[in-house]
This record gives sequence, C-alpha cells and structure tokens, in this order.
Amino acid sequence: MIDITLLGTSALHPLPNRALTSAFLSCEGHSILFDCGEGTQTAARRAGVSLMKTDIVAITHYHGDHIFGIPGLLQTMTSMNRTDKLYITGPEGLSDFFEPILKLAGGLSFEIELTEIPSEGVMLAEMIRGWPHESKLSAFRTKHRIISQGYSFTLGRAGKFMPDKAKELGIPVQLWKVLQRGESVQIGDRMIMPQQVLGEARKGLKFIFTGDTTECDSLIDAARDADLMICEATFGENEQAQLAIDRGHMIFSHAADTAKNAGVKRLWLAHYSPRIEDPMLYLHNATEIFAETSCGYDGMKITLTFEN
Amino acid sequence: MIDITLLGTSALHPLPNRALTSAFLSCEGHSILFDCGEGTQTAARRAGVSLMKTDIVAITHYHGDHIFGIPGLLQTMTSMNRTDKLYITGPEGLSDFFEPILKLAGGLSFEIELTEIPSEGVMLAEMIRGWPHESKLSAFRTKHRIISQGYSFTLGRAGKFMPDKAKELGIPVQLWKVLQRGESVQIGDRMIMPQQVLGEARKGLKFIFTGDTTECDSLIDAARDADLMICEATFGENEQAQLAIDRGHMIFSHAADTAKNAGVKRLWLAHYSPRIEDPMLYLHNATEIFAETSCGYDGMKITLTFEN
Repeated sequence: MIDITLLGTSALHPLPNRALTSAFLSCEGHSILFDCGEGTQTAARRAGVSLMKTDIVAITHYHGDHIFGIPGLLQTMTSMNRTDKLYITGPEGLSDFFEPILKLAGGLSFEIELTEIPSEGVMLAEMIRGWPHESKLSAFRTKHRIISQGYSFTLGRAGKFMPDKAKELGIPVQLWKVLQRGESVQIGDRMIMPQQVLGEARKGLKFIFTGDTTECDSLIDAARDADLMICEATFGENEQAQLAIDRGHMIFSHAADTAKNAGVKRLWLAHYSPRIEDPMLYLHNATEIFAETSCGYDGMKITLTFEN
Repeated sequence: MIDITLLGTSALHPLPNRALTSAFLSCEGHSILFDCGEGTQTAARRAGVSLMKTDIVAITHYHGDHIFGIPGLLQTMTSMNRTDKLYITGPEGLSDFFEPILKLAGGLSFEIELTEIPSEGVMLAEMIRGWPHESKLSAFRTKHRIISQGYSFTLGRAGKFMPDKAKELGIPVQLWKVLQRGESVQIGDRMIMPQQVLGEARKGLKFIFTGDTTECDSLIDAARDADLMICEATFGENEQAQLAIDRGHMIFSHAADTAKNAGVKRLWLAHYSPRIEDPMLYLHNATEIFAETSCGYDGMKITLTFEN
C-alpha cells in the first residue's frame, strides 16, 4: 500500500492557491518527498501531511522552484529536534548545488547524506532501516533545459503464501508471517527461504514522478504499467506544443500521450504555468488521448493498493 | 501618505494561515519590503500587493525565517523581466550572508546593490530616483541572539505654503508646486529656496519595524512618537517573560511597554510563535498597558496620513 499526496501543482513561482509542484509518498510509516520548492512545507501542513520524518528528499533538478524550500524545511526539522539521518538525492552535481543550500540552512540537529540514486534503483530496505523489503527507488533521465531526472518508486509483492507447503516443511504457524514478509527463518539447523513457501511474485505497485521534462522515451520506459504517474503539464493548449518543447516542458496532450504509450493506470497532471488559471479548461486535451487523466490539485490524495 | 501592509505574522516557520513576519511599505509609488521569509512572495499576492517593483529589501537579521524567501523573490522578479536595480540592506555581514542567497538565485535580469543603512538614516531621494524628497530610512540596533537591527521610515512634511510671501517675491503661480515639493526654483538670475515661502516644517509620519528583539532602549528611542510600530511579540503570556528574554524576544506586554514608553500612536503585534493559535487570547496583556494595540494579522493594512 502506498499513500501519495500531491502537495503542489504550480510551476515557476508559488501562488496563493497553488503551491510549487511537489509530492509526498508514504509507505508503511516511511516516506519520500519529491521536490521541495518555496512553500512546500506550508503546502504539506495544509494537506495534513507531516514532513518531519521524511526519509528521503528526491530532487528532480536544480531549478529554484524545485529546491528553494529546502533550507526552511531543514531548519523546521531542526526546530522539531529531528535526529534521524535525512537522505537527499538528485542528479549529477548534487553536492555542488547543495553547498549554498546547506550553508543557508546552517547547523542542523541531524545528519544529511547526499546520495545519487542509480537508474537500476536502490532497495530502500538496504539503505534505510525499517523500509518495506520490496520497495525500490530508481532515477531515470528526463529531458529538460538542464540535467534532470524523474523517479520511479516500486513496491514489490511476494507470491501467495502456501500453507500446505509450510505444513509439509514443519514450519510453526508463528513463523509463517516472517516468511510472508519475505524473510528467511531458522528451524533447528534448517534455513527456510521464503521462496519455499511462496508462489510466484505478484504484481506490485509503481509510482512515477516526472519532474520537468519534454516527452522522451526514457520516461515512457520508466513509467511502463505504473499505477500512478504525476506528470508535468506546464501548458494547456495544443497550440503551445512547440513552446513547451523549446522550454523543456509538456502540454497536457504530451503528458496524455506519454501515459498512453507507457500503459499507466492513471495520470495526474501538475506543474501548471502560473498563467493557467483553471487547468480544468484544458483537461479535454488530455482525456481525448488518455481517459484516466485528472487535473492534479494541491492536497489531492490516493492510496494505491495491491490488486486482488 | 504611507501605505503599510503586514504580509505575515508568524515566527520560526510559515503556517498555512500565517506567513512569516514581513511588512511592505509604499509611498508615492515607491516601496520597501521589510524581511522576506519563505512564502513572503505568496503572502504578498494574497494581500494584493506586488513586490515586483520593490526598491529596497530591508533585512533585520540573518535568521532563516527572515531571509529564505529572497532567492525565490529574486527569481520571480527576473521572470517578470525586472530591470531596475534592487537595493538590499541589512546589518553587518550583509555580503557574507548574501553570498549563498545570491548563488542560489543565480543569473538575474537586474542589478543588486548590497548596502548598509546607517543609524542616522539615508534620504531615499538621494539613493533612488523618484523617491519623495523628505523620506528617510534609518536602521537602529536591536537586541537579539545575533546581530540585528530594526528600521525607521520617516516621511517629512514641509511647512505650510505662504501665497503672500510667494506673491511678494514675484513667483509665477505655475512654480508654486515645485517650491511646495521642497525644490528650489530659478527666476531670472534669482534662486528661490523653498524655505522662503514655506512656514515651519510640520509633523511628518514615522513607521517602525522592529525585527526580532527583546525590550531595549535603542528601540524606544527610535520609535519615539511613531505613527505605527510593528513590533515582535513572540510569546503571549506574562509568565513567558523570562523565556522571551532568554531567546531575544518579547512577550505581548513587553511590546506594549515599549510602545507606551516611546509614545507611539499605534502598535501592531506580529512574529507570533507557531504555538500561539489565536493571538487575540493574549491581547489584553498588551492593551492593559497600551490601549492602542492590535493583534496584527496577515494582510492587515493601514494608510498613514498627515495630521491636519
């Protein structure tokens, strides 16, 4: 189960009713913040989400509207006496770009680890204590005016537990849960592996956060079969296609094309130009291509659950 | 005439309904922004104020909640194609503290001049083209945990124009306005000075923005007879007096004491701790001492006008 909250949907600068584009993912008590512009911490409060225990801040690129909220967030975490290490990830140049941010933020009550997430992903349980075993965060290259990346979060799902097999192997009922979680158990001198009592791995969950990008194959590949893609959609009108491409962005219908080509389950649009007063006016440009498109709004939430 | 808008009233971190403490002053089409925390640009939009043509950003001290909105503001000004020079002022260490801010903000469409404002003040007309002649911005030392200063803005008022004197001197009616504005005029080979046709200077207007401070004499001296003082009032209860002093702040009644001792006309409280849900609950602690106290709120406005 993954909870997603869209914290903001604006591009360029924050508006009174539209914070800068950012999303918060939580999964079994752990969490990732995707991008953090000026006002993201306030947007989170407004959405009823606490950022104080965020494990990872995943930055898509180093434009101000995606990072200027970080010094304030770090100071607020310090004022709340956070002690857990915070991981910050982003594309190449992370430590250079973070030097002024960390200088501004000043002395913190917790450690920060700047880390680059590879495209093949990291198993989060190996990085951070307590994360669900099968959760993985990967970065993928996107196409913007500067180096940028999107993120894919996947939550794997083990095969069905087979009680008959477990009984056959003489495993006490109390240990079934451990094997179901994907961990091995020791019984006497025997080591029982989860594969021995689980069926074939089942379809998990996948979430995509694009950051700023034009249409590109790497995004389509990464988003394949995702349950939810939050995709940038800076301009609404089809006539703005070339403008969008020139600026490294998408129009609504580009996002819909991407969703359709990637076969995602649902698409939320975000990162609207401040000139767009009401994104709903342009939604049809996307739904004509991909019906399961919604105009994202600040505070929009969904819980992604495993299929039966 | 001076228009003042209180843009925010929070301390430490921005809240959904309370932006960080900041105020905007405008006077005859020119303007000064006092402090700029994360979200100040959004608070200004909410209050219907445009910061895009701000002449001066006056910073009281270099704590994050007073400066983290600057990189975003500078980038928004650039996206709006500002070309006028922006003056930024603050206490000692201005260029050191601004180095990471300016690094983050990146390439701008306009020039920035970092300048320290002296305690005796600068005549703004000498610094910035088009400012009213008699307007003056001064800094005064306050007492916080780090080096800090408050600001005093005064708008002088020339003496009453004396038509009899002007006629006596043979000054054409069309030039009376120039002299009334405080400028001299040349008639033939005679130079007429405004003093020759104006009565004694009349009471002008004074505005005080304290920044973070405990009670101190320098603030009382600076605030003498001010028309409005926006004063920090971090804690509400009288029992928090020692806590406030230890942290370099004030309780509501400290602010009221200061206002009373300085003989100000009206006091607006601001910079409330995020723990204060409703500042009105503590207002009586101030009004018992100084009746003309109001709890400041985001978007609160006043126009200060000359007395008759």
